Amino acid sequence: MSSRITPLSGFPEWLPSQRLIEQEILGRVQRTFELYGFAPLETRAVEPLDQLLRKGETSKEVYVLRRLQAGEGDDAATNDELGLHFDLTVPFARFVLENAGKLQFPFRRYQIQKVWRGERPQEGRYREFYQADIDIVDRDTLPAHYEAEIPLVIGDALGGLPIPPVRIQVNNRKVLEGFYRGLGIESTEDVLRQVDKLDKIGPAKVAEALTGQGLSAAQAEKVLALAEIQAPDSGFADRIKQLGITDPLLDEGIEELVRVVDTAVAEKPGLVVADLRIARGLDYYTGTVYETLLEGYERFGSISSGGRYDNLATSGRDVFPGVGISIGVTRLLAILFGRDALTASRAVPTCVLVAVNSEEERPRSVAAAAALRRNGIPTEVAPSAAKFGKQIRYAERRGIPFVWFPGERDSVKDIRSGEQTDADATTWAPPREDLRPIVTGAV
Amino acid sequence: MSSRITPLSGFPEWLPSQRLIEQEILGRVQRTFELYGFAPLETRAVEPLDQLLRKGETSKEVYVLRRLQAGEGDDAATNDELGLHFDLTVPFARFVLENAGKLQFPFRRYQIQKVWRGERPQEGRYREFYQADIDIVDRDTLPAHYEAEIPLVIGDALGGLPIPPVRIQVNNRKVLEGFYRGLGIESTEDVLRQVDKLDKIGPAKVAEALTGQGLSAAQAEKVLALAEIQAPDSGFADRIKQLGITDPLLDEGIEELVRVVDTAVAEKPGLVVADLRIARGLDYYTGTVYETLLEGYERFGSISSGGRYDNLATSGRDVFPGVGISIGVTRLLAILFGRDALTASRAVPTCVLVAVNSEEERPRSVAAAAALRRNGIPTEVAPSAAKFGKQIRYAERRGIPFVWFPGERDSVKDIRSGEQTDADATTWAPPREDLRPIVTGAV
Repeated sequence: MSSRITPLSGFPEWLPSQRLIEQEILGRVQRTFELYGFAPLETRAVEPLDQLLRKGETSKEVYVLRRLQAGEGDDAATNDELGLHFDLTVPFARFVLENAGKLQFPFRRYQIQKVWRGERPQEGRYREFYQADIDIVDRDTLPAHYEAEIPLVIGDALGGLPIPPVRIQVNNRKVLEGFYRGLGIESTEDVLRQVDKLDKIGPAKVAEALTGQGLSAAQAEKVLALAEIQAPDSGFADRIKQLGITDPLLDEGIEELVRVVDTAVAEKPGLVVADLRIARGLDYYTGTVYETLLEGYERFGSISSGGRYDNLATSGRDVFPGVGISIGVTRLLAILFGRDALTASRAVPTCVLVAVNSEEERPRSVAAAAALRRNGIPTEVAPSAAKFGKQIRYAERRGIPFVWFPGERDSVKDIRSGEQTDADATTWAPPREDLRPIVTGAV
Repeated sequence: MSSRITPLSGFPEWLPSQRLIEQEILGRVQRTFELYGFAPLETRAVEPLDQLLRKGETSKEVYVLRRLQAGEGDDAATNDELGLHFDLTVPFARFVLENAGKLQFPFRRYQIQKVWRGERPQEGRYREFYQADIDIVDRDTLPAHYEAEIPLVIGDALGGLPIPPVRIQVNNRKVLEGFYRGLGIESTEDVLRQVDKLDKIGPAKVAEALTGQGLSAAQAEKVLALAEIQAPDSGFADRIKQLGITDPLLDEGIEELVRVVDTAVAEKPGLVVADLRIARGLDYYTGTVYETLLEGYERFGSISSGGRYDNLATSGRDVFPGVGISIGVTRLLAILFGRDALTASRAVPTCVLVAVNSEEERPRSVAAAAALRRNGIPTEVAPSAAKFGKQIRYAERRGIPFVWFPGERDSVKDIRSGEQTDADATTWAPPREDLRPIVTGAV
């Protein structure tokens, strides 16, 4: 292997010191998901192309697979054309339909995997990236209280990380659609699509687009007035009612959104804000929708989005409504890595380097290392019986805090302080904070 | 999503109860790798096709990618054709060359990822599967003692799992090539290829093939006599010498193999056996080679293979020799799942289900669940304020051991024994063994 070796644009790769941080972040997110009783799931990386293309918007981003040396009619006979999944929701919906008979409903699962999109790469947009998803699906109906649980999980998952605080913006599709209907608007989807552009083009241009679509100036004004409402508590409900629009779907949506906000205020004050401009594009959401901003990094957009859906997984008479959210882990890490806002205390797991007196005595060092490992202490043996100064530099360059010297009596040296003490490999333990690399944020 | 939903042959997917076992296995393997100071690495899933095709044997198995809606000349201009990696060694070698300036050598890394091969699926052969790899690479030269370390790591990694015991078969390419050269054979690769078939076609047919290749009957006899040698200790060396062949490369190989076996005998007696028939096909190995059998499942072949290589990563004057081994995790799990030889104590992480007295009182249950989670106890809240009998059945069906009842004084019921006691959510803790699902083997 010696020809052109260059990074591939859109396929980020971390150095081990960064991968160590990524693992720590993914591990903590996973543990929080498990604390809420979500069961683990991993689906295959590929789906039949026709399944992937059902969600039209992303079809241009799909990577299609072919076997390099597939025989004539080979794949065609055994399976349809395959593509790499571009999110974890489509594979999850397929998995639920395929395994409905073997699952217990409501089914709570988390799924942390890479996904692939053939997009033009730019900061925050990748062709390969990690998503960390949770979803709760039920058969036939799904109680609305699950929509209030999702922000609590994400608040714990992201709040437990060494990153800036997050704010989850919530809205409800029923509020928007009910309000638009109450205003006498028929093509609510077209309005949604314009409102979704508010942050990008501003209210004046959105108003223009709305009237261009046939709305009256008064209708456009009301649409924008709704989008301006923000509140950290259920106060948003009165402000909507002051706009004087009534509709049964609007009332239902307000009730659901009040519940989401009230639950968050009771459990995690400051985490959630009702923001009536959040629309989540043209997706398949039918109730609560979520977007999540990182304090100080708002301009990078949402790092965790999702919502309630009712029609994603249907098979004959069976319907599986659900609610879910996805954390864009690679995007989050790339933003923070780019600003040196996350660091690990060392680049290797190793806590102790066992020195080697001479190659003949290497078995003694190997035995000392084995004893330390039996007590759960990550340990390496030095690569050669070089001068101790050189062996110590091996540890220094990697941030390994301790060097162990086998001898008549063994001793261990903290190479940061230079302090050296006699020690027994079967009983010695490092200070707790030195056992594993520690990941900290610059916040 | 409602059209044909069927499993894809060769792309195994586990139910959550099985994925939970897979995670436990992968987590334990990872922790062992870290105990030995291997740093984490994850490479992108794709490599340029020309890099993947350098290893000719597997080229027919590569999955090639194309963007469904790539513009004219679009990809050609920005990057070459891409394929999914079929192992973790080729991407690792590329990563080392690409990042040599940022890495510390010797570089110890582990890598646990899915790989893809477009093979015809059959038991133990998949199109998507997990590999768990470790490698140690150095610049210019790599000391042979690392070849003795690899079996200790694998012994700990697999020995710590709830699976049958393993036996690592070791050999050394220098022994084989030196021996063949000492016998006056020139095309040692052709001989290796025949010896590799011993288990499949037996010694008579191999002897026939060897003489067909131009070896004398005496040469073929010696080749087979070498392949018959097996020993749990360095006794193999004398048995080779008794065959009366001398060659400097043979002597070097014997010395290295003695070291591998002696180290294992000292640290983990019974783990390693020198087996002079192990050849590892036509791969790029130049020193020690490893194969690993699972006791009682020998007919499924090696579950962990690797070896020493000197020419995998070279760039101009820089050479990075290495030694590594790969655990075929999916294959191992599929074998054991197929025989119900691995089970989890429950299918969900949840330890406690908090009952709901009435929908109005749900916030009280949510608060109790939050208190339990703050103490690290995986907890769910019941889906509805149904009769308690129905709520308890929700827990039973999932194997959740405890149901929590909010009340004037809260109480908690062990639904296995039926025992119910008063409890405080801020201080109660389950027995340690109930906190998380426990994975056990049928061994």
